[in-house]
Amino acid sequence: MSELRQNLVTKEWYVIATGRARRPDDFVRRKPRPRLPRRSSRCPFCPGNESLTPPEVGRAHLAGARADGTWHVRVVPNKFSAFSAEGLAVRHLNGLYRWAAGVGVHEVIVESPRHDLIPAQMPLEQLRLVVRMYQERYTAALEDSRVQLIILFKNYGEAAGTSLLHPHSQLMCTPLVPTHIRYRAEEARRYYDEVGRCVFCDTLATELKDKERLVWENDGFLVFSPYACGSPYEVWIMPKRHISCFSMTTQAELDQLAEALFVVHRKMHGLLSDPDFNYVLRVTPKDERYGHAFHWYIKYMPRLAKQAGFELGTGMYVNTTLPEANAKYLRDVEVEM
Amino acid sequence: MSELRQNLVTKEWYVIATGRARRPDDFVRRKPRPRLPRRSSRCPFCPGNESLTPPEVGRAHLAGARADGTWHVRVVPNKFSAFSAEGLAVRHLNGLYRWAAGVGVHEVIVESPRHDLIPAQMPLEQLRLVVRMYQERYTAALEDSRVQLIILFKNYGEAAGTSLLHPHSQLMCTPLVPTHIRYRAEEARRYYDEVGRCVFCDTLATELKDKERLVWENDGFLVFSPYACGSPYEVWIMPKRHISCFSMTTQAELDQLAEALFVVHRKMHGLLSDPDFNYVLRVTPKDERYGHAFHWYIKYMPRLAKQAGFELGTGMYVNTTLPEANAKYLRDVEVEM
Repeated sequence: MSELRQNLVTKEWYVIATGRARRPDDFVRRKPRPRLPRRSSRCPFCPGNESLTPPEVGRAHLAGARADGTWHVRVVPNKFSAFSAEGLAVRHLNGLYRWAAGVGVHEVIVESPRHDLIPAQMPLEQLRLVVRMYQERYTAALEDSRVQLIILFKNYGEAAGTSLLHPHSQLMCTPLVPTHIRYRAEEARRYYDEVGRCVFCDTLATELKDKERLVWENDGFLVFSPYACGSPYEVWIMPKRHISCFSMTTQAELDQLAEALFVVHRKMHGLLSDPDFNYVLRVTPKDERYGHAFHWYIKYMPRLAKQAGFELGTGMYVNTTLPEANAKYLRDVEVEM
Repeated sequence: MSELRQNLVTKEWYVIATGRARRPDDFVRRKPRPRLPRRSSRCPFCPGNESLTPPEVGRAHLAGARADGTWHVRVVPNKFSAFSAEGLAVRHLNGLYRWAAGVGVHEVIVESPRHDLIPAQMPLEQLRLVVRMYQERYTAALEDSRVQLIILFKNYGEAAGTSLLHPHSQLMCTPLVPTHIRYRAEEARRYYDEVGRCVFCDTLATELKDKERLVWENDGFLVFSPYACGSPYEVWIMPKRHISCFSMTTQAELDQLAEALFVVHRKMHGLLSDPDFNYVLRVTPKDERYGHAFHWYIKYMPRLAKQAGFELGTGMYVNTTLPEANAKYLRDVEVEM
């Protein structure tokens, strides 16, 4: 019989249906990715093609690199932005209906000058630059008074919604709080009101005690398979310290986060062979960022299943794998630091 | 600049981003489907293979068919059910976490004896049998005291989450109300409390007045592109009369619904060439089925876009097409009745 599990944070239910038992082998990527050159003359994210993008808004170098115009991480506004930098965040009526202009921010964080690096090949020092840049751009976005929510994410591979292979992440800001985020924030606040503690801190304590869903940890971060989740091999990367806003993460913690990402990329690759995935920085609406109820984390989801009518109709996901088994598989993949 | 539009019913926001203007041609299915036989010896849904399924729970014949053991629509429990027919709907604690046994109902409605019929080839009289069977099984499921929500849906094609091509739909019942459904029901009730009218009845009136999002209508049903929606070419098929529970739909209305489905299947095929799609019967939780605030409808979604990090992180969908333009394209596809 399947098991329904409730996400402690959001109160959402997931169906854990392992009847047709599926092992990691069933999910391994079979189709080889195209062989990429180190540098592509047509790729707007490759060095030498900087003129193909809008003017850059951020740049970083590896320590010790020469100041000769090279860069190791670069940030540019998205040329095909879903949100416009110009305009006012006001709402309009159209009869019964409501609309607003799509103002906001949409940036691309180019994670490496190398066109062909897969996530599991990213050097640790490169990932350190990337997560520091995440925070730099995140903090800059907080300054825009029209911004209500900042979403930072990475799409990797076709199943994750991108065909662009040059390593990159995106930062998008919306001028309103979507219901999905509002409900999450409300539930976290309700938990805090009832229990007097942050629901994420309580989750961390539970996972450290139960142990069976732990994947990896360092001093600053815990990586674990969430008890209730919809994607096979999904993990959460959560700071051990209560940090409500990503901008308040210390430089030392950012380095620890880079290490966690380094390990997770390699473990996923070791188990599933360079899977398509998304990760998303889970944050609270900007106006609530100093609250006691919320705690940021990264949700990392290999894209191994498709949403069908049941998921679209109920908002409930069917997971054909068991989080406890997934954690063990991931734990057992050795990663050389 | 893109436009943010709010769904009147759920308060969810959608990004309508038509910057890289996309026409129906950009979405037309290019990959031919496999050529199927009229009957497959290995298909559990083909006549003659009835012994490959669990014992049937429903069967229907076309009027005038001989009573010789043939059937035209057949319903069986899903052999790989996500929910079990046995067991109690109780919740358990696992430390901080909550779980419940996966009890419920999971049936497959085989829509035709023909293995190879694509949706746009389904005869009208066959669709009439199908929707009558939908109601028969829906009404039967209402009797199960453990059932809290009934979901009826069709998955067609790989992008819609199925590789099984024999025409079929599914009915699933959950022993709890997922948050997604609870929030929708709460918003509809709030609208009713504030305005004194059903939000769906108000939507129908608005669409009939505005006209620009209308796709098709008969005496009983309106087909339209929703003002705020996430899937290109998504349409809603909504009864004109206020009907809170699907079980209260009359036989005459069910025939009109069959006609609407017949037309929508053919219009989608004419425009997008046999697209993968899902449709879902949108209903309220069972315990609220006699309320004044809710009104059932069918959400029909061609699967032409992928969810990426932004959608996963915000719950907001980016639609690269304009509902008003989609409605015009669909209106212009002629269908012979």
